[in-house]
Amino acid sequence: MHNDGLLVVLSGPSGSGKDTVLAELFKLDIGLVQSVSMTTRKPRDNEKDGVDYLFVDEDCFVSAIEEGKMLEYAKYGNNYYGTPKAPVDNWLNENKVVVLKIEVQGAGNIRKLYPDAVSIFLTPPNKQVLEERLRNRGSEDDEDVRRRLDIACSELERICEYDYVVVNDDLMDAVRDVKTIIFAEKLKVSRRNKILSEVNK
Amino acid sequence: MHNDGLLVVLSGPSGSGKDTVLAELFKLDIGLVQSVSMTTRKPRDNEKDGVDYLFVDEDCFVSAIEEGKMLEYAKYGNNYYGTPKAPVDNWLNENKVVVLKIEVQGAGNIRKLYPDAVSIFLTPPNKQVLEERLRNRGSEDDEDVRRRLDIACSELERICEYDYVVVNDDLMDAVRDVKTIIFAEKLKVSRRNKILSEVNK
Repeated sequence: MHNDGLLVVLSGPSGSGKDTVLAELFKLDIGLVQSVSMTTRKPRDNEKDGVDYLFVDEDCFVSAIEEGKMLEYAKYGNNYYGTPKAPVDNWLNENKVVVLKIEVQGAGNIRKLYPDAVSIFLTPPNKQVLEERLRNRGSEDDEDVRRRLDIACSELERICEYDYVVVNDDLMDAVRDVKTIIFAEKLKVSRRNKILSEVNK
Repeated sequence: MHNDGLLVVLSGPSGSGKDTVLAELFKLDIGLVQSVSMTTRKPRDNEKDGVDYLFVDEDCFVSAIEEGKMLEYAKYGNNYYGTPKAPVDNWLNENKVVVLKIEVQGAGNIRKLYPDAVSIFLTPPNKQVLEERLRNRGSEDDEDVRRRLDIACSELERICEYDYVVVNDDLMDAVRDVKTIIFAEKLKVSRRNKILSEVNK
């Protein structure tokens, strides 16, 4: 990135509340652009194709990988999840703030491809809360919950790979924290080429 | 710094409004601690010893330098300006957010001593505004203004050595920006040892 665009990676274990936080963040209308992830998993009842995810079949997903069109992807259980590359690059070239919701497994790839990306790890306040949230979700059976919980606990150990950590205990506090990080990062010297040229007039 | 303390260096040329921004920032009562600088220059009419600066004579200042008690110091014109080291270290050990107002010439030293310090360059929107502010200050003669303006213009070229740049056009916008940076920096993974131990419970 050699412009004033900003790529924000929001990650965290299943049950950390990534979707809810992002939904509230976008309600604030602060000029963010959200990349829509692609997945082969089946939509839940309230999910819309092209809004919550791009829902595709496995053949389609594998082709995109092979053609180098995915920014990152990961397989969880039997399902692929990933981020198409083209829209992200276009938005960054337009100096926009692009927010990516990324599974923990895939975030490392993004940081390699975009060293200036800002990574935020969203975490539940502790493991007890995480387990409660996964159980209350209700769309998965006991075995699924246990598998997600195991993965989540190992993912919590990767917090140190991130730039920031936001605790999602009170939802609106977490939204405020993510917003604060984005606003501060836009004030970084490295992202203010336009401002710097004005100052020296 | 191996704790959750945060050292914030606020710098910028004479006329950028460091004092005014800091005064407003401290009114917000967000738990900041401000180090008081030491100087050999004479107090202006409204300045109080121990509040605006520690006003000392040259012998006293030079002794402090020789005894290694200064975090940084610089000589502007005939006057010394600098920061006593002991209170800063004590506050950081107590995990506080310490704000240092530092002349541009001295900020580099701080960054060397405290690599985790966050540096903010406060700048006027452009050079015309800078000149107006210096002339309106009224406490200095024409030659002083010209000298300060020359120094300020060369200091503007050092913005890139800083982490963040805040434009002081509208005062309250500048205050909000500095506050945002401080809040975001407190969310950095490297400063959340306490939180990380709670998450893994």
